Amino acid sequence: MSETGATGPLSPSALPAGLEAATIAGRLHRLRERAPRVHTLTNSVAQALTANLLLAAGAIPSTTIAAEEIPFFTARADALLINLGTLDAERRAAIPIAIDAARQAGKPWLLDPVFAEASPPRLAFARELLAKGPAILRANDGEMRALTGAATPGALLAAARSGGLVLARTGTIDWVSDGARFVAIANGHRWMARVTAMGCAGTALIAALLAVEPDAFLATASALAALGVAGEIASTHARGPGTFPAAFLDALDALGEADLTARLRLSAEATP
Amino acid sequence: MSETGATGPLSPSALPAGLEAATIAGRLHRLRERAPRVHTLTNSVAQALTANLLLAAGAIPSTTIAAEEIPFFTARADALLINLGTLDAERRAAIPIAIDAARQAGKPWLLDPVFAEASPPRLAFARELLAKGPAILRANDGEMRALTGAATPGALLAAARSGGLVLARTGTIDWVSDGARFVAIANGHRWMARVTAMGCAGTALIAALLAVEPDAFLATASALAALGVAGEIASTHARGPGTFPAAFLDALDALGEADLTARLRLSAEATP
Amino acid sequence: MSETGATGPLSPSALPAGLEAATIAGRLHRLRERAPRVHTLTNSVAQALTANLLLAAGAIPSTTIAAEEIPFFTARADALLINLGTLDAERRAAIPIAIDAARQAGKPWLLDPVFAEASPPRLAFARELLAKGPAILRANDGEMRALTGAATPGALLAAARSGGLVLARTGTIDWVSDGARFVAIANGHRWMARVTAMGCAGTALIAALLAVEPDAFLATASALAALGVAGEIASTHARGPGTFPAAFLDALDALGEADLTARLRLSAEATP
Repeated sequence: MSETGATGPLSPSALPAGLEAATIAGRLHRLRERAPRVHTLTNSVAQALTANLLLAAGAIPSTTIAAEEIPFFTARADALLINLGTLDAERRAAIPIAIDAARQAGKPWLLDPVFAEASPPRLAFARELLAKGPAILRANDGEMRALTGAATPGALLAAARSGGLVLARTGTIDWVSDGARFVAIANGHRWMARVTAMGCAGTALIAALLAVEPDAFLATASALAALGVAGEIASTHARGPGTFPAAFLDALDALGEADLTARLRLSAEATP
Repeated sequence: MSETGATGPLSPSALPAGLEAATIAGRLHRLRERAPRVHTLTNSVAQALTANLLLAAGAIPSTTIAAEEIPFFTARADALLINLGTLDAERRAAIPIAIDAARQAGKPWLLDPVFAEASPPRLAFARELLAKGPAILRANDGEMRALTGAATPGALLAAARSGGLVLARTGTIDWVSDGARFVAIANGHRWMARVTAMGCAGTALIAALLAVEPDAFLATASALAALGVAGEIASTHARGPGTFPAAFLDALDALGEADLTARLRLSAEATP
Repeated sequence: MSETGATGPLSPSALPAGLEAATIAGRLHRLRERAPRVHTLTNSVAQALTANLLLAAGAIPSTTIAAEEIPFFTARADALLINLGTLDAERRAAIPIAIDAARQAGKPWLLDPVFAEASPPRLAFARELLAKGPAILRANDGEMRALTGAATPGALLAAARSGGLVLARTGTIDWVSDGARFVAIANGHRWMARVTAMGCAGTALIAALLAVEPDAFLATASALAALGVAGEIASTHARGPGTFPAAFLDALDALGEADLTARLRLSAEATP
């Protein structure tokens, strides 16, 4: 958090409502009670960790990539996660089918454009998907710049407003905006970047929370805050990046209001 | 176990022979000595855990899904596991080839019809496979109802008898029948349902035991009992669902007669 | 190490230069500083562990298997790993494209011919790839015999010389030769063979070290020695093969000169 209290370019004086520790904890509690289904069309590296993260949080994952089955799984699901990751031919064909199924069924879907900046065909494909109107785009700095041009909080807010969606730029500090509101989240631990697919899996928690919190901005910020706090707790139980992910899932399973109250580092300033 | 001693619809007075702790432990010992090969045609989420479970139990896994190679791997293997899971096009094409190769080579094969109840094309495919005559069908309640209609122990026994195979309906309590015998297994821990692909991986242990125990009923019940007991032991070494699977593999690796003697909860009654 | 001091068929009197503990530790340090990119075209079972091993060592993995994207990822990468593993149709098509991209970009590439001895089409494919000139071939005993015929240190040295590449035959004791030099590495722990894809993942560390050590013989021997020492340290923190891989990644992350000095068991003799 800004020690001086100086306001950043967005100059908000307070956190957006609904991001209090108790309110975020309430969303996590609802998730465990309702056990929403999340269909994940994600890369093969991330599948197991993503499913285990959803199970640890209290949601029910499904992961089929077969195009003919996706409409059935999407119809049963409460939210859909699209992750580019290992963009093999079958996933590439299945992704638009899944998105169309979600749109027809009125189910929210999220886009995680992994490595969109790394190859031109991938960037072009990510742009096509973005035009289909996801509720949320979650990207790291390089991916967000490539897709929206946004490299500052102000630009992120402007891009979210013009795009009509929630943008989440994750990194050491996460930024989330829906075009009207903005929050920076400084929770997390360096080992989270030393585990493959941790970001991919984390996006699935946003999807799960979206099933119990229709305000996509609050769902996104709550998920990223919970992930960061779980990471901090996990770091106290792990010996290194190898033992970290299991400890992370344990922490997410047990995460409660007291943990959030003690550790949340949210700010309406870009640089907390 | 039934506290009253009242008999259920099957009215057996005692456990089927061959399910004593020492006998089950003997099968696990033979598995470690003989190190059978199990070829697993399983979904991408389950592949790593399945292979690690087989290695922890003392078996040797192989996992290729390439249709042209499967006859060679099946010929080397002692048993074949077919899991529907992420039913992509290549697996869908490879599965019948693998089954035909196993039948020609006289190798036993098992069917795990994951999510058969979730989509009509998947259910139709599972029915086709079931008609090819697996030694064992392992399914959860929803999958078993969709494929055999069996929702009670009596119905399971009748379906096993008419189908001429072993049916295992897994859940908080597992039911196993070959049409003549029945056993209910109450071992296990709630965290087993919080780890993705734990059921899929567990079916691989049935396959491995089938390689050292030709009586498919005893192989199935022994595997499910061992999995449940290992899960109970693991829960004492884990902090949550994240640290549970590694502790589970440790427990399976070390599982011995004393553990089984102390913990086995088998019953000839449907509700132990 | 040879207790008698008798020399083997290669009769070297001392270790090849550059394999001192401090020198190996220096390479690991350079890897962490430079964070090279390694593109891995590996099997679906190994993908997550391979990526996590690279991250634990300080490298940056990428894992896409999409043929149209591979040239872009290979151009960004410092080394390319080709692993046959689950040889599905898409990987089979992508592998030659990836190798051609690496050759055009002047990037070194490694071949891990998993199960080459298990099926004739796989062996034929592995031979085709070997003819394309990898910097390093890493194989277990069965795979190495099938591809090069080498079953002894002398034969390995001869095959490496005639093939103009580094050959690494891994097992309880690893052998590495470039046709002029030879080293046997006796580090490691039996649990390394009880974790699926540990060998596949380990080959990725060779690739990462090749990015900071152009002498492929030294890069290979350093990687295998580091893996073995990390395995020994991990065994002291794990309870069994289940908890072993996470402890292994922790150990690799923390591996330093003191660990290597205390534990390295390298020998110029075939049987240390």
